[in-house]
Amino acid sequence: MRELREQVLEANLEVVRRGLVLYTFGNVSGISRTDGLVVIKPSGVPYERMKADDLVITDLDGRQVWGELRPSSDLATHLHLYRSFSEIGGVVHTHSEFATSWAQARREIPPLGTTHADYFYGPVPVTRKLTTAEIEGNYVHATGVAIVECFGNRDPLEAPAALVADHGPFCWGRSPDEAVHNAVVLESIARMATYTVALRPDTSGVSQALMDRHYFRKHGKTATYGQS
Amino acid sequence: MRELREQVLEANLEVVRRGLVLYTFGNVSGISRTDGLVVIKPSGVPYERMKADDLVITDLDGRQVWGELRPSSDLATHLHLYRSFSEIGGVVHTHSEFATSWAQARREIPPLGTTHADYFYGPVPVTRKLTTAEIEGNYVHATGVAIVECFGNRDPLEAPAALVADHGPFCWGRSPDEAVHNAVVLESIARMATYTVALRPDTSGVSQALMDRHYFRKHGKTATYGQS
Amino acid sequence: MRELREQVLEANLEVVRRGLVLYTFGNVSGISRTDGLVVIKPSGVPYERMKADDLVITDLDGRQVWGELRPSSDLATHLHLYRSFSEIGGVVHTHSEFATSWAQARREIPPLGTTHADYFYGPVPVTRKLTTAEIEGNYVHATGVAIVECFGNRDPLEAPAALVADHGPFCWGRSPDEAVHNAVVLESIARMATYTVALRPDTSGVSQALMDRHYFRKHGKTATYGQS
Amino acid sequence: MRELREQVLEANLEVVRRGLVLYTFGNVSGISRTDGLVVIKPSGVPYERMKADDLVITDLDGRQVWGELRPSSDLATHLHLYRSFSEIGGVVHTHSEFATSWAQARREIPPLGTTHADYFYGPVPVTRKLTTAEIEGNYVHATGVAIVECFGNRDPLEAPAALVADHGPFCWGRSPDEAVHNAVVLESIARMATYTVALRPDTSGVSQALMDRHYFRKHGKTATYGQS
Repeated sequence: MRELREQVLEANLEVVRRGLVLYTFGNVSGISRTDGLVVIKPSGVPYERMKADDLVITDLDGRQVWGELRPSSDLATHLHLYRSFSEIGGVVHTHSEFATSWAQARREIPPLGTTHADYFYGPVPVTRKLTTAEIEGNYVHATGVAIVECFGNRDPLEAPAALVADHGPFCWGRSPDEAVHNAVVLESIARMATYTVALRPDTSGVSQALMDRHYFRKHGKTATYGQS
Repeated sequence: MRELREQVLEANLEVVRRGLVLYTFGNVSGISRTDGLVVIKPSGVPYERMKADDLVITDLDGRQVWGELRPSSDLATHLHLYRSFSEIGGVVHTHSEFATSWAQARREIPPLGTTHADYFYGPVPVTRKLTTAEIEGNYVHATGVAIVECFGNRDPLEAPAALVADHGPFCWGRSPDEAVHNAVVLESIARMATYTVALRPDTSGVSQALMDRHYFRKHGKTATYGQS
Repeated sequence: MRELREQVLEANLEVVRRGLVLYTFGNVSGISRTDGLVVIKPSGVPYERMKADDLVITDLDGRQVWGELRPSSDLATHLHLYRSFSEIGGVVHTHSEFATSWAQARREIPPLGTTHADYFYGPVPVTRKLTTAEIEGNYVHATGVAIVECFGNRDPLEAPAALVADHGPFCWGRSPDEAVHNAVVLESIARMATYTVALRPDTSGVSQALMDRHYFRKHGKTATYGQS
Repeated sequence: MRELREQVLEANLEVVRRGLVLYTFGNVSGISRTDGLVVIKPSGVPYERMKADDLVITDLDGRQVWGELRPSSDLATHLHLYRSFSEIGGVVHTHSEFATSWAQARREIPPLGTTHADYFYGPVPVTRKLTTAEIEGNYVHATGVAIVECFGNRDPLEAPAALVADHGPFCWGRSPDEAVHNAVVLESIARMATYTVALRPDTSGVSQALMDRHYFRKHGKTATYGQS
C-alpha cells in the first residue's frame, strides 16, 4: 500500500501541475484490487503540504482503515466506480475549466477529431440530472450511480471519462496516473471541441471508420502505437 | 496593525501571482474591527517595490492615520463595504478579465454549476448603472452604495462578490486572504460561465437542491468539507 | 543617444516578456526630439541576441545615421507618426493576438468599461483599408498616413493606439516604455472586449460621464491617481 | 546524418517548448536529400527522455536503416510529402489546439491579415475527408496523398501547411526547424482567425494586393525583410 500511496500522491500533484485544479478542488484515488483497499486524497488539504502519509485508505464500503484525516468528500463516487467498473485502477475528479463547461452545458462531447478517437471510443457521455431526492439523500453515491448508469453496457475503459451534469468531469484508467493522463487529454479535447463547434455548429464529427482506425491503433490487441 | 499590514501586503501580492491584475490595477484592503482601522494599498505603486510600510491606514471615515503615500483611489468603495457589511474583514478589487467582461456586459453570473454553488449561494450580482450625478459627484462612494444596494437583504457572505457594471469585480471575505481566494474562484467561475453560455445559451443553471447541497457542504454549521 | 538606445532595447525586450510578440514580429522605437533622431529595432534580428549596439538610428526622413544593420521594415510608419504627432516619444507595433483580431475584423474597439476609459478616451480607432495604389507604392509610409488620418483632430495621446485594418496595432506614448505599457493594456482591453461582445452583442459601452470620470482621473491637470 | 539527427531532436523538443504538443502527440522529421534518408521521431517515446540516438532513420520507401525503436506512426505521411514536395527538408505534425479545431471544423483558414500573408500565400487548405476504403487501407499514406492532392499545382512552400480534415495540421519547411517555426506561426494565425470570425463572421480577408505586398516582402527574390 505504500507504493500505491506514493502513486496516488504523485497523481494528485500532477493534476495541479497540469493546471486542472485550483486550490483544493479535485481529487485522485487508486485501488489495490488484491487488498480491496482504496487510497484517496484527504479533504481540503492544500496540495503544497500534502504528504503520502496524509492520504486516507478505506475499504470498498468506505470504512476508513488508515489515516487520521477525513477523506475527500467525493469518496463515495470513487468507490461506486471501483465497485462497478472492475478493470479500473484509478479515478480522478477535477473542475478543469473546459470539461466542466461542457458538463455545465449538459452536453456530451462528440468525437470531433482523431485526438478524441485516440482516447475515447464514441462521445464522452454526460450524466442525467440527479433528482431532488438523490441530491438531498446519498448525493455523492448517487453521482457515481448516474455515471455508471450513463454507460449502460458500454465498456468504461473505451471512454474513460464522464461529465457529471452541472458539476464536472470524472476520469479513470487502469492506474492513478493513467486516470490523470486521461483527464489531461479530456481537457484538451474539450477545449478543441469548444472552438470547433464555434467554427462549425453543425459538425458531424468523425466517421465510424476513422474512429475505429484511431481508437484501435492505440488500444486492444491490434494496437500499433508506441514501442511493443 | 503590523500583522494586518503584512496580511494585506501578502494579499496584494497574491492577486498579482494569480494573474488577476496587470500593472497597478486592483487593490486589497483589510480591517481591524477592534481598532476600527482599515489597511489599504497605496495608489499607483508598482507591486514589485511595495513594502508593508507603504500601506496606508485610515479610519472608517477615510481619515488617514498612518502612512505617507496616498491611499488607493478606490478607498471610499472599500470603506462603504466595511461600514455596511459588518462581518467582512477584507475587500479586493481587480480587473480580472472574465469577471470584468461579465461586468462590462452588465450580466449577473448565474449559478451554472457546483463550482459556483460551492462559493456563491445564488448569482453573482451586477450593480445598476450609476447616474450621471453619482458619477460626477462622490463617485467612488457611490460605487460602494450601488454594491450594497444590489444585495438588499441578502447576506453578503453568501455571495462574497459583486460585478460593478461597466467596471469590474469587488470581492470580500472574513479576511484579506479569503477575499483574494474568492476573487480567484470568481475569475474561474466567470471563465467557465463564458464557455457554458456559448455552448448552451438557454442554460437554466443548477437546481435549488443542488445549490443547497453544495453551498451548505462548505458553509455554515452543517459543513462537512475539509478537516474539522 | 546611448540612454535612448538602452531604453528602446529594454522596451523591445519587454514586449516579448509580456507575450505580445512571437519570434521577430513587432518593433519598438524611441525619439530624441532635441536631436531629431529615432532609435529603432533592426529588422528580423532575434530578441535573445539583440544588443543596444544593434539598434539603428535614423533622422526623421529615414536617413540612417548609425548602425550597420537594416532598420525595422516598419520604419516609415514610425517616422510618419513622429512627424505628425509631435508629443509622442515612443512607438510600438505588435501582432498581439486579440488586438490583431479586432484589426483583422476591421472593428474599432468601443469603450466597454473603465479599464478602457482609464487609458483611451473614446474608441481605439481602426484605419480605413489602404488602396491598391498605396499598397503597391509607398506602403509602409501609407500605413502611417492612414493612422494619422483616422485621428483627424483627435489628440493622439488621448487614445494612444490605432488598429491598422487587416494588420495589427500600433501604439505610442510619451516614451518607449509608456508606448509598451499602452500596448500591454490594449491587448487586455481587446481580450475583454472580445468576451464582452460575445456575452452582449448589443452593448452600448460606458456613458460619457463614466468615460470622463475615469479618463481624467488618470490624465490631465485634474488627475488624482497615483502619487503626486 | 548525425547533424540531421541533432536538428530533428531539437525540432521535436521545440514543439513541446512552444506548447504545440501534449504528451507524445506530434512528430517532426527531417530529410537528407543527398542521402535519400529521413530522420523521424520514434513512436510514443516521452520527449523528456528522447535522445538523438532514439531517432529512427528510414529511406524514402520507409525501410528502416537505423535505430532500434519503431518510427512515428505517421511516418508514411511524412514520406509521401518528401517524395511529392521535392524542395521541403522538414515536416512536423502536431495537434496544436486552434489549428486542430479548424481541421475538425473542416474549414480552410482564409488569409485574414498580414500575419497570415507574411507566411502563407493564400488560405491554409484543408484536405477532403478520406474514403472508408482509404481509412481501412493504407491510411497513413492516404493522409499524405490527400494533402498533396489539395495542393494541386500550388507551390507547397508558398503555403507550408495543410489541415488534415478531422485530424490536425501538418506543416513543412526547407529544414526541420523552419517546419516547426511555421507550425508555431500557424497556431497563432489559427487562434487569431478564430477570434476574427467571431467578431466578423462575413470577413472577406486581405486583398490580393496586400497579400502580395506582405508575402513577397519576406519571400522570393524581392524580399526586403531581415538582414541581407
